[in-house]
Amino acid sequence: MSKTINSIAVIGGGSWATAIVKILCNNSDKVNWWVRNSETAEYIKKYKHNPNYLSSVEFEASKIFVSTDLKEIISKSDLIVLAVPSAFLKEALKEIKAEDLKNKIVFSAIKGIVPENNLIVAEFLNQIYKVPLENIGVITGPCHAEEVAMEKLSYLTIASQNTENATLLASKLNCRYIKTTVSDDIYGTEYSSVLKNVFAIASGICHGLGYGDNFQAVLISNAIQEIKKFVDKVHPIERDIKSSAYLGDLMVTAYSQFSRNRTFGNMIGKGYSVKTAQMEMNMIAEGYYGVKCIYEINKKYNVETPITDAVYRILYEKMSPAIEMRLLTDKLS
Amino acid sequence: MSKTINSIAVIGGGSWATAIVKILCNNSDKVNWWVRNSETAEYIKKYKHNPNYLSSVEFEASKIFVSTDLKEIISKSDLIVLAVPSAFLKEALKEIKAEDLKNKIVFSAIKGIVPENNLIVAEFLNQIYKVPLENIGVITGPCHAEEVAMEKLSYLTIASQNTENATLLASKLNCRYIKTTVSDDIYGTEYSSVLKNVFAIASGICHGLGYGDNFQAVLISNAIQEIKKFVDKVHPIERDIKSSAYLGDLMVTAYSQFSRNRTFGNMIGKGYSVKTAQMEMNMIAEGYYGVKCIYEINKKYNVETPITDAVYRILYEKMSPAIEMRLLTDKLS
Repeated sequence: MSKTINSIAVIGGGSWATAIVKILCNNSDKVNWWVRNSETAEYIKKYKHNPNYLSSVEFEASKIFVSTDLKEIISKSDLIVLAVPSAFLKEALKEIKAEDLKNKIVFSAIKGIVPENNLIVAEFLNQIYKVPLENIGVITGPCHAEEVAMEKLSYLTIASQNTENATLLASKLNCRYIKTTVSDDIYGTEYSSVLKNVFAIASGICHGLGYGDNFQAVLISNAIQEIKKFVDKVHPIERDIKSSAYLGDLMVTAYSQFSRNRTFGNMIGKGYSVKTAQMEMNMIAEGYYGVKCIYEINKKYNVETPITDAVYRILYEKMSPAIEMRLLTDKLS
Repeated sequence: MSKTINSIAVIGGGSWATAIVKILCNNSDKVNWWVRNSETAEYIKKYKHNPNYLSSVEFEASKIFVSTDLKEIISKSDLIVLAVPSAFLKEALKEIKAEDLKNKIVFSAIKGIVPENNLIVAEFLNQIYKVPLENIGVITGPCHAEEVAMEKLSYLTIASQNTENATLLASKLNCRYIKTTVSDDIYGTEYSSVLKNVFAIASGICHGLGYGDNFQAVLISNAIQEIKKFVDKVHPIERDIKSSAYLGDLMVTAYSQFSRNRTFGNMIGKGYSVKTAQMEMNMIAEGYYGVKCIYEINKKYNVETPITDAVYRILYEKMSPAIEMRLLTDKLS
């Protein structure tokens, strides 16, 4: 059945959600925007910008409908873009039932795993909310929200097993500063975007320990090989891991001074405990949850993942970062 | 015929040559070191460090034999490591004849193309100096010489179609801060290391024009695909382009603030002319010569190389960087 998309919702009040609302406003008359906090909603309505994230981005009042009522936002929309941190997704959707999502197209811009279920968002929507796979998709980078705010040229990959849906959403996102590519690989893009956060933590740990740029390049070369081995095992389809959705997304995160995952890792490498680093940052490093999920999921697949294993042992088994990374160096080439 | 390597020579007085001498001194009693300039040679003998490059590195006097007499250095050595800029190789070797290199093993650490002949160094040695391919090899990164000086852990790939020679040299280079991998791909590693300089220029141009990190990640993802297409066409053997010798070498150069190729590109992107940028830098950006060679060599192979073509047109046909890169963005994904 061919669908038209008359109305789109964005779920989330963070920087990535705000960036997606900004992009969609270029081609849509109205974007429905759910934020959790009623003060934030009132602020956006009154001052036309998000007080907490990308606050330089101004919205046209006529183009956004902001609400804290998730049921209302979803019922008004044909296509839903989820953009809350994966650790909060379950909580955010707690009042939503499968029937609320019936006939909706749902895209995840989350790039994460739902920790309680160890499911990527696509699987979570499919298994828990009975959204058929053909109505599910993934939006992936390489894309720092901050550069979208500045209208710096960025490329997004829109993945769905239903090419028509991916193409429809891509046409809504294309604009002067956004170019899109369509893919059919929802598993590979989503797992890859989880793993890249884990590797950004690894990269930060090594930087914190004093490893240099020469080693960093070796680490990331091995990381993309680890991503390929993992996603090829979990979902064996034809894919070019050198595409920007995989390799580009890994590089933009691992090489970024602004990545919270890299910053978190850097603090661990410098000797902070996990708890202190998290308190100091006052932000969630997605890879902290991601590495645990991947580690547990991998018990089923048994892929050789030396970098992931090292990060897991450092963050969850209190192993020494210096020793773990020293041992890791012998497994890289 | 199985060879032993009793003596090794390093040819060149720059930072990479100096770094290689430093590494070799860990496992060798004596390294024969040719530098062009007699004042440099005298200085090194007297003060035990190179006055111009990596001057923090101190050598044990008993371990190095420094000379400006290339014939003498070569005749004393079983294995020769060439580490002069590719544009100066022909001039440096002008007194050397094929018979001087007879039975010598020659490794290129140059990562370049000999401009007058449009040959990679391995081909140049083979065709002009009649060194049999089995006695030729390539040393490749990812490896900034500056980090070797600081003894930061780095990985080198030692390539030769003669695995025994590659393994022998690798064993001479392995030390506390150097790990080595052996490869049989002299063409792929050498072409790849030329192309990475071209892409570092592209990366600098885009940075100078105001493109951000999101775009940078897309550019480098497309660059490694361009490398793969090119080397697979020129020398079609099995290789994993995600290995650190290819992808790592590309990343360490393109993401480095210190890469002279990236710096050169950045100046071009900011509006400097090629001549002014070269004068300001007072250093050679290898990629400037590399892009011309690759462009000309590619007339034979006809590989689709949009990034290389854009850099060539900007540097040699005075095309506008802003327009060329704008056109390039439509060819990337």
